[in-house]
Amino acid sequence: MKKEEVSHLSNWQQKIHEIIFGYETAGGKLFDVFLLIAILMSVMEVMLESVPEIDARFDYELKVVEWIFTFLFSLEYIARIISSPRPIQYIFSFMGIIDLLSLIPTYLGIFIDGTHALSVIRSIRLIRVFRILKLTHFMGGAQQLGSALWSSRHKIIVFLGTVLCLVVIIGTLMYMLEGGKNGFTSIPKSIYWSIVTITTVGYGDIAPATWMGQTLASALMIIGYAIIAVPTGIVTNEIIRGENVRNAAVCHNCGTRGLPSHSNYCLNCGSQIKFSDQK
Amino acid sequence: MKKEEVSHLSNWQQKIHEIIFGYETAGGKLFDVFLLIAILMSVMEVMLESVPEIDARFDYELKVVEWIFTFLFSLEYIARIISSPRPIQYIFSFMGIIDLLSLIPTYLGIFIDGTHALSVIRSIRLIRVFRILKLTHFMGGAQQLGSALWSSRHKIIVFLGTVLCLVVIIGTLMYMLEGGKNGFTSIPKSIYWSIVTITTVGYGDIAPATWMGQTLASALMIIGYAIIAVPTGIVTNEIIRGENVRNAAVCHNCGTRGLPSHSNYCLNCGSQIKFSDQK
Amino acid sequence: MKKEEVSHLSNWQQKIHEIIFGYETAGGKLFDVFLLIAILMSVMEVMLESVPEIDARFDYELKVVEWIFTFLFSLEYIARIISSPRPIQYIFSFMGIIDLLSLIPTYLGIFIDGTHALSVIRSIRLIRVFRILKLTHFMGGAQQLGSALWSSRHKIIVFLGTVLCLVVIIGTLMYMLEGGKNGFTSIPKSIYWSIVTITTVGYGDIAPATWMGQTLASALMIIGYAIIAVPTGIVTNEIIRGENVRNAAVCHNCGTRGLPSHSNYCLNCGSQIKFSDQK
Amino acid sequence: MKKEEVSHLSNWQQKIHEIIFGYETAGGKLFDVFLLIAILMSVMEVMLESVPEIDARFDYELKVVEWIFTFLFSLEYIARIISSPRPIQYIFSFMGIIDLLSLIPTYLGIFIDGTHALSVIRSIRLIRVFRILKLTHFMGGAQQLGSALWSSRHKIIVFLGTVLCLVVIIGTLMYMLEGGKNGFTSIPKSIYWSIVTITTVGYGDIAPATWMGQTLASALMIIGYAIIAVPTGIVTNEIIRGENVRNAAVCHNCGTRGLPSHSNYCLNCGSQIKFSDQK
Repeated sequence: MKKEEVSHLSNWQQKIHEIIFGYETAGGKLFDVFLLIAILMSVMEVMLESVPEIDARFDYELKVVEWIFTFLFSLEYIARIISSPRPIQYIFSFMGIIDLLSLIPTYLGIFIDGTHALSVIRSIRLIRVFRILKLTHFMGGAQQLGSALWSSRHKIIVFLGTVLCLVVIIGTLMYMLEGGKNGFTSIPKSIYWSIVTITTVGYGDIAPATWMGQTLASALMIIGYAIIAVPTGIVTNEIIRGENVRNAAVCHNCGTRGLPSHSNYCLNCGSQIKFSDQK
Repeated sequence: MKKEEVSHLSNWQQKIHEIIFGYETAGGKLFDVFLLIAILMSVMEVMLESVPEIDARFDYELKVVEWIFTFLFSLEYIARIISSPRPIQYIFSFMGIIDLLSLIPTYLGIFIDGTHALSVIRSIRLIRVFRILKLTHFMGGAQQLGSALWSSRHKIIVFLGTVLCLVVIIGTLMYMLEGGKNGFTSIPKSIYWSIVTITTVGYGDIAPATWMGQTLASALMIIGYAIIAVPTGIVTNEIIRGENVRNAAVCHNCGTRGLPSHSNYCLNCGSQIKFSDQK
Repeated sequence: MKKEEVSHLSNWQQKIHEIIFGYETAGGKLFDVFLLIAILMSVMEVMLESVPEIDARFDYELKVVEWIFTFLFSLEYIARIISSPRPIQYIFSFMGIIDLLSLIPTYLGIFIDGTHALSVIRSIRLIRVFRILKLTHFMGGAQQLGSALWSSRHKIIVFLGTVLCLVVIIGTLMYMLEGGKNGFTSIPKSIYWSIVTITTVGYGDIAPATWMGQTLASALMIIGYAIIAVPTGIVTNEIIRGENVRNAAVCHNCGTRGLPSHSNYCLNCGSQIKFSDQK
Repeated sequence: MKKEEVSHLSNWQQKIHEIIFGYETAGGKLFDVFLLIAILMSVMEVMLESVPEIDARFDYELKVVEWIFTFLFSLEYIARIISSPRPIQYIFSFMGIIDLLSLIPTYLGIFIDGTHALSVIRSIRLIRVFRILKLTHFMGGAQQLGSALWSSRHKIIVFLGTVLCLVVIIGTLMYMLEGGKNGFTSIPKSIYWSIVTITTVGYGDIAPATWMGQTLASALMIIGYAIIAVPTGIVTNEIIRGENVRNAAVCHNCGTRGLPSHSNYCLNCGSQIKFSDQK
């Protein structure tokens, strides 16, 4: 976020903004580290609360911890709003909604009882970890992965579509073959089994017992085994291509892209390649 | 499908043809969307029908829905025949047979009883989804995948052949080692187990109990773990190669293929590369 | 096998040789097809024999079939010896031993009783399928895969070595954590479990029950999930490299290898590349 | 380790050093082989000791074997110290600590009883195998893999981080959906199940029984099935890039890197590439 954007804010707001949203200053760095720890600890608290033995013994302690974190995150939420150059935009941003959602359950717990099931929603706080990571150089890797997946979305959709049709049809066949026995009590159940099988998860809670069913299952496994190669190929190709494109030089004279990296002159118009064009 | 092909049809036929087979016109687009929804809903209906609890309660409603969809698809089927420039060719095309097959079971249900097992055949309607997708730009991805798999078919067949021989031989060995106990009651069963294991599905319905069996099983798993890399490598290589071939320029003068993309002149005959040759 | 090698054989031997070892002549092709079917059927027979229900009902028929195939393969074996230009070499070749081994059990069955366990050895006949495939163009794919795996053997050995050490150490840890309970009754068993887990097979016959065990197991799974990528990367890289090397042109003047395919002149010495050097 | 480093040692020390640390001399080679066998056998002994049946019968023999190996490894440890040019450095090196750690349990067994659980620590001796491998040409492969994994660490961390957040959130959802039944007794347990599922291990000790749970599980499997492609793509890309970088030539005049292998002249400054710059 550039400086001029926040220039209309008063000094103390800019200070807070620098600490909460920024990451160049020592304060900003420190804040991020603390926030990261706080998030992870509060999520840990949510988990422990769900373990019957632990909840029974440390009910009070956990409640206290929960309230401390809720208080801290509430403060942070308010600070973000007042220090943000565009408060409304922040509140309705994805991250803003996450921030709010992770606070509600605790406050709701005061008025309504038995919101335990609801309280686990707080574990979506985990998503906020990404905001902190966003400020780091890890994001480079993330963006590369993201763009690789994005540019191969068509292939992936086609692939998943084919897989889904396959599991539906094979699930239907298994339902016919096993005759509603051995756990194949309905087509949806059989489809569930097909997915468990083609993804090579294989719980074994449902498994064919007739020789016909086992033969079809074997076929499905071999297929699943073979086509796992397809998404891998797609993504690998995209990542490699992304790599090459990133490393490629661009000619600012004739606009040719994808020139071999380290080349000094454009192989089309012969104009020199500025190093700034090269990664 | 080009215009001239349908020119011998009367106007109203061309209109229907445009809507059913085409996808450029608003009508064609709308029709595809409705068809897609109808197919998915009718398949959903087939699934729900197979769930005992639901079938018991909503037997009548489901029957009604089934008849509505069967009626709609019958209309579509007839419309396709009369609006097709080559009706016979359509009827005996793969898609034409699928269209018909997915209608028969319902009509058959009138005359013959207990065709419930048969009625699930209607879920092959799902295959018709692909026809609609065929009209979309997703098909580009599909073709790329298809050609990648096709051009690596020899390697894949060799790979699967080796895997099959491996599972037969190891299945036989396990049958000997486990002595027909712990579920290894016959060689086919043992082979089934081998496939379940080498594909890393691992139901656990059959599992070795003797230390010899477990040792051999471990070996099989490590092998399966290592050779899963092979199909992946094959397909990845093909996808990358396909990518390069697509991006490659072709010289229309000397016919050289696989020229580096963005090259201005053929590196063989020096004639200029038209941009039309470049993707 | 070249003509001159067999020239010292009498005409009828050459004829047999052509049919059995060759695959250019119609006779040779026909023989291979029949042999392939015979092998697959005889292996099928071995399998069926191992199924108690089937063996009980069709004991006699299966015995007859077994003897027919044994007789046929014996004939073939003798024919191979007499028609081979170097009989001794054939007999002690890998394929020759396989041929013999797959015959012995049946003959042994006459003199000794209860060789049922032994009789399943006949299923190694399956390996003979490869000889027939060897004559086909599938072998191209096989060789490519073979060379890819061979040239990456060092990396694969390092990888498997690391995996084995990992499973031993984690197996030992699990044995300590689970305290010999929940199926982790000994270190070898725990190692077996580690392999079942890291290869993502996951039978579930042994599974951690303590939270410490489950945490370590989770770590092991994530590791296994991440490092499955390594062999894939290795093999893919080798396949792609092999591809490039195959497609690369070679300069016969200065001996430079790995020239870009379709290049007309050597980029080192400028001498023209003969098309014969290009695949 | 270069000669001059050990020159300050007396002759007999150098002799020992050559045998223990070196691998050029016949003595060094022989020592490595023996050490490798000794390590593997001693680890085998640790394993067998953990098998109740075997330990009960061969308790005495195993103890003897343990003491023999402990004695041998103690000798080796001392020899390493006295023959090392920098004893202190060796003792506190990773390998030195491993050497010591694998000795302690046996000696400790004399004074303290019931150190059986502790004694399994000796299996970390296995790590010492790597030292021997370090001396071999296998290390080339290892380094390539290592550097590939290292240079893709950012992407891998991002990937694992995303996976971990995913399993936590889906684990929480499953805990809500299955309502603490069917093994989903707490969020940690549900997360454990998510990991078991997304890594396609699928023990089946915990499996969803409600249709909502099974639907979410199916989604998780498909996701896990799709994103397994990501690490593979990352590592493959790195391995291929590493390959290219290794094969690439470097210009010592202008310092340009990544020149196509086998090129005679730098494509930037036109100065000749020495073959020494090429792998």
